[in-house]
Amino acid sequence: MKAVVTVMPKKSVLDPQGAAVAQAMDHLGLPHVGKVRVGRSIEIELPEGASEEKLHELCRDFLSNPVIEDYELEIR
Amino acid sequence: MKAVVTVMPKKSVLDPQGAAVAQAMDHLGLPHVGKVRVGRSIEIELPEGASEEKLHELCRDFLSNPVIEDYELEIR
Repeated sequence: MKAVVTVMPKKSVLDPQGAAVAQAMDHLGLPHVGKVRVGRSIEIELPEGASEEKLHELCRDFLSNPVIEDYELEIR
Repeated sequence: MKAVVTVMPKKSVLDPQGAAVAQAMDHLGLPHVGKVRVGRSIEIELPEGASEEKLHELCRDFLSNPVIEDYELEIR
């Protein structure tokens, strides 16, 4: 089985990298770009039957910083 | 409209960050983790009717490094 974890900065948190990307896209010929947020995407190959609960625990405690980031876990 | 760009290291490229995550997950109680790859996820708010072609161009030339990374563009 495969898990895809997407970690994004919380909406309330300033994302300077996203702001820089938005500004650059404007300069590079795609005008009127709104908010941009830059996060991480992590693809994990897991053995069948791996504990989803443990996976959520690791997403929260290890793969993301819950103070400033939210994560989404998708099992494929 | 909203675009989500996922940029991942190519399968043929060594991903030391992914290898470190896999090893750490093993130590943290999720054994037998296979390959892990760490990439970026970029959410972009766009005006309606923004050029998808231009967006692909920026994904290729600006948001990713096509030598070592692949991107996926999803319009929502």
